[in-house]
Amino acid sequence: MSIKGKSLFGLEGVGKEDLELILRVAEKMKTVVNSDNKKLPLLHGKSVANMFFEPSTRTRSSFELAAKYLGADVLNFTPAISSLVKGESFRDTLLTVTALGVDAIVMRHKQEGAPFFAGQCVDPLIINAGDGAHEHPTQALLDLFTIAEVKGHIDGLKVVIVGDIDHGRVARSNIYGLKTLGADVHLVGPRTLLQPEMASLGVTVHYDLAEALENADVINVLRIQKERQGSGFFPGDREYASLFGIHRDRLQAAKKDVLILHPGPMNRDLEIGTDVCYGAHSAIQEQVKNGISVRMAVLYLTIIGGDDVDLTR
Amino acid sequence: MSIKGKSLFGLEGVGKEDLELILRVAEKMKTVVNSDNKKLPLLHGKSVANMFFEPSTRTRSSFELAAKYLGADVLNFTPAISSLVKGESFRDTLLTVTALGVDAIVMRHKQEGAPFFAGQCVDPLIINAGDGAHEHPTQALLDLFTIAEVKGHIDGLKVVIVGDIDHGRVARSNIYGLKTLGADVHLVGPRTLLQPEMASLGVTVHYDLAEALENADVINVLRIQKERQGSGFFPGDREYASLFGIHRDRLQAAKKDVLILHPGPMNRDLEIGTDVCYGAHSAIQEQVKNGISVRMAVLYLTIIGGDDVDLTR
Amino acid sequence: MSIKGKSLFGLEGVGKEDLELILRVAEKMKTVVNSDNKKLPLLHGKSVANMFFEPSTRTRSSFELAAKYLGADVLNFTPAISSLVKGESFRDTLLTVTALGVDAIVMRHKQEGAPFFAGQCVDPLIINAGDGAHEHPTQALLDLFTIAEVKGHIDGLKVVIVGDIDHGRVARSNIYGLKTLGADVHLVGPRTLLQPEMASLGVTVHYDLAEALENADVINVLRIQKERQGSGFFPGDREYASLFGIHRDRLQAAKKDVLILHPGPMNRDLEIGTDVCYGAHSAIQEQVKNGISVRMAVLYLTIIGGDDVDLTR
Repeated sequence: MSIKGKSLFGLEGVGKEDLELILRVAEKMKTVVNSDNKKLPLLHGKSVANMFFEPSTRTRSSFELAAKYLGADVLNFTPAISSLVKGESFRDTLLTVTALGVDAIVMRHKQEGAPFFAGQCVDPLIINAGDGAHEHPTQALLDLFTIAEVKGHIDGLKVVIVGDIDHGRVARSNIYGLKTLGADVHLVGPRTLLQPEMASLGVTVHYDLAEALENADVINVLRIQKERQGSGFFPGDREYASLFGIHRDRLQAAKKDVLILHPGPMNRDLEIGTDVCYGAHSAIQEQVKNGISVRMAVLYLTIIGGDDVDLTR
Repeated sequence: MSIKGKSLFGLEGVGKEDLELILRVAEKMKTVVNSDNKKLPLLHGKSVANMFFEPSTRTRSSFELAAKYLGADVLNFTPAISSLVKGESFRDTLLTVTALGVDAIVMRHKQEGAPFFAGQCVDPLIINAGDGAHEHPTQALLDLFTIAEVKGHIDGLKVVIVGDIDHGRVARSNIYGLKTLGADVHLVGPRTLLQPEMASLGVTVHYDLAEALENADVINVLRIQKERQGSGFFPGDREYASLFGIHRDRLQAAKKDVLILHPGPMNRDLEIGTDVCYGAHSAIQEQVKNGISVRMAVLYLTIIGGDDVDLTR
Repeated sequence: MSIKGKSLFGLEGVGKEDLELILRVAEKMKTVVNSDNKKLPLLHGKSVANMFFEPSTRTRSSFELAAKYLGADVLNFTPAISSLVKGESFRDTLLTVTALGVDAIVMRHKQEGAPFFAGQCVDPLIINAGDGAHEHPTQALLDLFTIAEVKGHIDGLKVVIVGDIDHGRVARSNIYGLKTLGADVHLVGPRTLLQPEMASLGVTVHYDLAEALENADVINVLRIQKERQGSGFFPGDREYASLFGIHRDRLQAAKKDVLILHPGPMNRDLEIGTDVCYGAHSAIQEQVKNGISVRMAVLYLTIIGGDDVDLTR
C-alpha cells in the first residue's frame, strides 16, 4: 500500500487504510520532531514550492518546517510580488513553477477547486493547504492524529463540530476523515452558517448547542471568520458568543474527559472561552505541534512513498 | 580558461569561449536537476544574496533554487522592508550586504547600470538579473542553451527577435550572445519600439513581420510590457496583436521546424497566440527549466571556477 | 560556566564572565566566517524563528545567516501576512510558533518589553533583536567585540556615545555592556534627546560635543531616527549636523587613534560625515561583519551551551 505520486486535494474519497498509513507515519515523525535532532533528510535532493495565494502564518510555516526537517529545499512563492501582477495567468504561473523542477506544490487559494485545477495542469504533486470553503485536508489529518493520540482510537467517538460549517473547509475535511474512521459526527451552529442539507453527509445536524454537546467525546471549535462578517450571514459577536461560544459551563453536558480542538487562530471569548482554550481539556497547542509531524508524513509518503518510514539516520 | 571571480554584468564583451564554457557546464548541471537528487553541494559553505529591487517571481526563484541545489545559503533581501526606508543610500546597503559575508549578489534593478555600479563599490561577485532596459544576461544564456539543445548548434541560424526591442533587456543580451556565437540576428517590431540605429549592432532591422520571419530557424517573442503602455510609445493591444503577434498562421513563412521562445511571463493572445505558445514548436517551459541549470553553471563558475564541473557526489 | 538555556533580553545584569564568554566564542566564529567554508553545523537539527514585528534588513539578515551558517533551519515569520490580521493575540501567535517546535525566537518589536513578555509566555529561548527604546543586546555585543578587536581591550577606555540617547536601544545596551567591562562611558547629545538623569547609570552626561570628545578612545555615533522627527523632540537636520554631527574636524579633540562606530543605517552628513564614516578611523563595515560572528556565538551558547566552541568539522 502506498500513496506515492498521489496529490492530496482533500479527504473526500481517501480510504481508511490510506488515512491510517498517514497517521502511523506521522506518529513516527513526531518522535523525530521531539528529539534533539529534528532533521530526517529523507527528502534530500527534492524541492517543495509553497504557493500561498491567501495569507497564512501557521499553515505555511508548518509546511515549510516540515519540508526543511525532511531536508527538502523550499521555495516560498509570494504571489503579491509575482508575475501575476504582470498579467500572467494562473495556469502559466503553475507551468513556470513546475518548470523550476519542484517535486510538490503546497497550495492555498481562496477559490474552491484551485488545487484540483492545478493538478490537471501540471505534473508536480499538489498538496491542498486550504481552498476556499472546500477542504483543508492536512488540518483535518492533524485533528484526527490528535484525537487518536489522546483517545487511543477514533472509531465510535462522538465528535461535535461547532460554528461556521458552511464556509468552513476545516469542517468539511474533518467530516470526511472522521466518517471514514468510524466516528459519530455531529454539527452545530446558527442556521445562517449551517444548512440542514449537511445531514446528507451522514452526520447529525443540530441548532441547539446543549443538545449537540450531550455526551461528546471531542468538540472541534471552528473559527468565526470575522473578515466575512457584515455579509448578512453572521450573527453579531455577543449573540454568537452567548449561543454557540464554548465556555467552561458548556462542557457540563459533554463527557468528563472531553477533548477540545480548535484549528486556530482563535478569537478568544468569541467562539471559545479563555477558560477553555488554555484549560485541561484543550489540545490546541498540541494540534499545532502535530501539524508538523502530519505534514512530514504527507510530504514523505506522497513524494517518496512506501508503507512505513525508516527513522535510521 | 576560467571565469572565476568575474562578475556577470551582461553578455556584451563576453567571448565565445566563455559562453561555450557556461553552456557546457549548464548541460552537465541539467543532468543533476533531472535526476532523483537535485543536490550537488559544490557551493557548500558559500552564500548568495538575492537583491531584487524590482518584483520578479521566476528569475528570483530560479536563482534561489539554483543556489540551494548547489548547497549555498541564500539570503533574500527584500528592499521594501529594508533600511532603504530609513534613508540609507544604495551604496551603504551594498556595503552592508557585503559585510554580511556573501560571496555573490544577484541583482535586479530598474536602473540601467546599477549592477555595474555595485561591482565598483563592493567585493562580492555581481550577477545581473536584469537592469532596466540594459541587459539580462542569464535570460539570454538560457535562450542560447535552449537553442543549442534543440538545434544542436547556434552558428549560422537565423534568429528573429520580435517586439519591444528598445526597452527590452532580453533583446540586448540575446543580440550580444547570438552574434558572438555566429547567429544571423534579425529584429522586428513597430517603429516606436525599434530604432533603425539598432542595425549598428550587426543585426538586420525589419518593420514587417512576414518579411522578418522568412526562413527563420528561431523566433524569440518578447513580452509587451503592459505596465509601460500609455506612455505614447506603445500601440494598442489589438493593433499590436494583429501586426506583430505570433500566431500559427504567421509561422508559415518560417522554417518548418522553427523554434519558438518567450522569456515569460506571457501576455497570451497579445504578443503570442495560445496556439503557438503551447504548440509543438514552443520550448517555453523548457526555457524555464534550463534557467535553473544555466544559473547553477554561472554561480558555480564565477564563485568556484574551473573549466568543467565534476558531478561526483 | 554556561549560558545554555538563558534568553537574552538585554545586557542589563549580564555579568562580566558571560560577556567575555560570548566575545571569546565570537572570535572563534569569526575564523569560520572568514574561511572558505562558512558552514559549522553545530545547530544541525535545531530551528530558529525570526519574528520581526518591525522592518529590518541588517539585523534580520545577520541573524538569518548566522543561524544558517550554524546549520539551523530558519523560519522567517512576517507578521504582515500573519494570523495577526485575523485577530489572533500576540500571546497566541507566540504559542503557535512555539508549538511549531523552534528552539529559539529572535524577536524585534516596537514595544519595550515584548521579548521579556514572550519569555514569560513560552518555552523557546528569546533573543531580543531590539525592543523599542529599551535594549538591542546583540548590537552592543558586536560593538564591544569590535572595540576589543581593534583596541585589544575595553577596560579603561573612554567611550563616547553621541546622539539620540533617550530613544536609543543601542545606547542603553552599550552602556550596560561597557560599564560591566570597565569602560569609562560618556554620553552627549541635545537636551531634548538626552536626559541628565542618565547619569544615574554611572556615566558622564555632556551637552557640548567638543567637551565630550576630549581624549576619546571610541566614538559610537547613533542614528538620528528621522522617522521620529516632527515629534517636537528632534532638532532640525542642519542644526543637528552642525552641533552634534561627527565630521573630521571634530575628531581633533579625541585621541589620534580614535575608533568610530555606527550601528547603521547611516544618515550620512547628518549625524556622521562622509569623510569620517568611510575614513581610516571607521570600523563601521567591520561591525556588520562582526555581527554575524557575535550572533553565531549567542545562538550557539544559548541553544547548545558550553564554555567554548570546537571548530573541528
